[in-house]
Amino acid sequence: MNYKLESGVEPLREAINNSLAQFVDRENAYLIEIGSELIPVASALKNFLIDSGKRFRPLFAAAGYVGNGGQLDQSSINAIASIELVHVCALIHDDVMDGSDTRRSAPSIHKLFEQLHARESLKGSAQQFGVSSAILLGDLALVWASKALHESGLNSESIMGALPVSDEMRVELMAGQYLDVYEQALASQSIERSLKVARFKSGKYSIERPLHFGATLVSRANLETYTNYGIPLGEAFQLRDDLLGVFGDPAQTGKPAGDDLREGKRTVLIASTLERSNDLQKERINALLGKNDLSLSEVEELRTIISSSGASLFVEDLIEKLTTESLAALENSAVSDDAKTFLIHMASVATKRSK
Amino acid sequence: MNYKLESGVEPLREAINNSLAQFVDRENAYLIEIGSELIPVASALKNFLIDSGKRFRPLFAAAGYVGNGGQLDQSSINAIASIELVHVCALIHDDVMDGSDTRRSAPSIHKLFEQLHARESLKGSAQQFGVSSAILLGDLALVWASKALHESGLNSESIMGALPVSDEMRVELMAGQYLDVYEQALASQSIERSLKVARFKSGKYSIERPLHFGATLVSRANLETYTNYGIPLGEAFQLRDDLLGVFGDPAQTGKPAGDDLREGKRTVLIASTLERSNDLQKERINALLGKNDLSLSEVEELRTIISSSGASLFVEDLIEKLTTESLAALENSAVSDDAKTFLIHMASVATKRSK
Repeated sequence: MNYKLESGVEPLREAINNSLAQFVDRENAYLIEIGSELIPVASALKNFLIDSGKRFRPLFAAAGYVGNGGQLDQSSINAIASIELVHVCALIHDDVMDGSDTRRSAPSIHKLFEQLHARESLKGSAQQFGVSSAILLGDLALVWASKALHESGLNSESIMGALPVSDEMRVELMAGQYLDVYEQALASQSIERSLKVARFKSGKYSIERPLHFGATLVSRANLETYTNYGIPLGEAFQLRDDLLGVFGDPAQTGKPAGDDLREGKRTVLIASTLERSNDLQKERINALLGKNDLSLSEVEELRTIISSSGASLFVEDLIEKLTTESLAALENSAVSDDAKTFLIHMASVATKRSK
Repeated sequence: MNYKLESGVEPLREAINNSLAQFVDRENAYLIEIGSELIPVASALKNFLIDSGKRFRPLFAAAGYVGNGGQLDQSSINAIASIELVHVCALIHDDVMDGSDTRRSAPSIHKLFEQLHARESLKGSAQQFGVSSAILLGDLALVWASKALHESGLNSESIMGALPVSDEMRVELMAGQYLDVYEQALASQSIERSLKVARFKSGKYSIERPLHFGATLVSRANLETYTNYGIPLGEAFQLRDDLLGVFGDPAQTGKPAGDDLREGKRTVLIASTLERSNDLQKERINALLGKNDLSLSEVEELRTIISSSGASLFVEDLIEKLTTESLAALENSAVSDDAKTFLIHMASVATKRSK
């Protein structure tokens, strides 16, 4: 069966989801063969993967693949879908690092296994059992990401062609995550530093590298175009995330209102607010940001400071500017026409979303 | 440059160490290019890798490679050395899961970054910063393991030939680690269950799979021989570890005396002791095992119960029996003669060590 980008995002997303579900079912059967104690691991990973949404990275990988002349068949869908499993690892480990107890309104993996510990009246610390399980499930997802690519059905030449990008993407992801963790601990207020983290965390990882990954399954053509499109769009994507983390509707995002404020995330939005605030406002921000039990009225207070400072508008303008820069990179490029059309559409999907 | 198994373990270990050091230096230069904040990450990984010892897994991989007719040159040394990085991931994450603050008399990775947090007076929880950093450094080591193989210099056919084993080994490692964590939480006293964990954790991961990995860089010959040699020897290897965890000399093992007792590890040795103990002894074992602040005299008390129960002798006999079974698998096999000699020697190295 063949898939076409011009059929739109939805059929492709469905094909990606089917590929992932089939892979995980096969792997889960093997896990349960090793031991029935692994049934909770299998079912937690399956549910987490199926719930975990937007598939931006495989979608961009598909665009890179088609943009370089690839035909989307089942094997290439399997290959591009594999990078979603890298993201699953990142999310599971991220929740442990942030101490986030929910993801998309469901318990995060460490919380789920903490609950299993309590339910089965196991010995030792339930919290530690949850963390240990989540570390291992994240590791397993990362291993699966490689396995899914290797078993995709594509020929050796295609797979070996994409491995350098796949490896670099993963190194950059882990390096970017460390920079992010370190940045939070520094509690820095510099827009420049926050943008640097955004660049590594999302600019490269969410869009540029997936495009390169898909492209190099075919050839090393157009990599510069994908960089020039992907880096600014990735930053815009992250900035939209930052806005949603403060102003997003819980019914849409699946996260509590003002979740980033409670976590104390040091984003471009916050750095820009601090730059525009008077001493009293700064004092309130520093008192409330990262407060674990932040109330709804305190969330509202921070939202008002952020909006009225002009920071929200500044970030919206930045998103607009970065998106324009991104789209300019496609003009006069050698990327195939159907991929160009798809990428123009995806730029809008990535930056104008409400979840 | 070529390496020969008949030159013995030491020159090969040195070649493996050189390969790893060169890879990590190259990767560290790249990390520091991303950001100088990553200097502590780079230096922690380098030190951890250089200190981390015995290189059993690459040594067995070398034997599998030569046993199937491979010639050890720089490219194949790079490829076999790469699996040590999988082990680095396992150790770093293991220390987080066990809450072990030292490894080989040095601070474990999470402890090291906890100290960095304090030294730099960073914000938030130092302990959480340590755990987050260790999760990411372990992830990075796992990514590096793949990258080192892909960049080894071996041709595509060799690399693609070994990927299925490499992937399965990693899946089994993570599954085995979960079984281990779950087993500890069950606090089960069954020898059968403990042996099952030992089989997945060490039987397959420490010896059989490294042999398969090295072998499949050349061909799929001899895999059954390596299984029949590797599984019992891996169990014997783990049983030696269990004895060292109770009776080992801290000056040799780099771990505090009776470390496994303090951690409450449910090993075959402990299960066998419980089976041979009277009610009073059982009561003492259950009271002391896993006690965080176990004193030296309490360690001594447990050692006496374990020895006098006959469990130590039982485990020594089991090691002997498993090793004999392992060596029998080599006779009349098609494994090359130099690899056979090396594997007979390695069986003794793996099961008669004092560290």
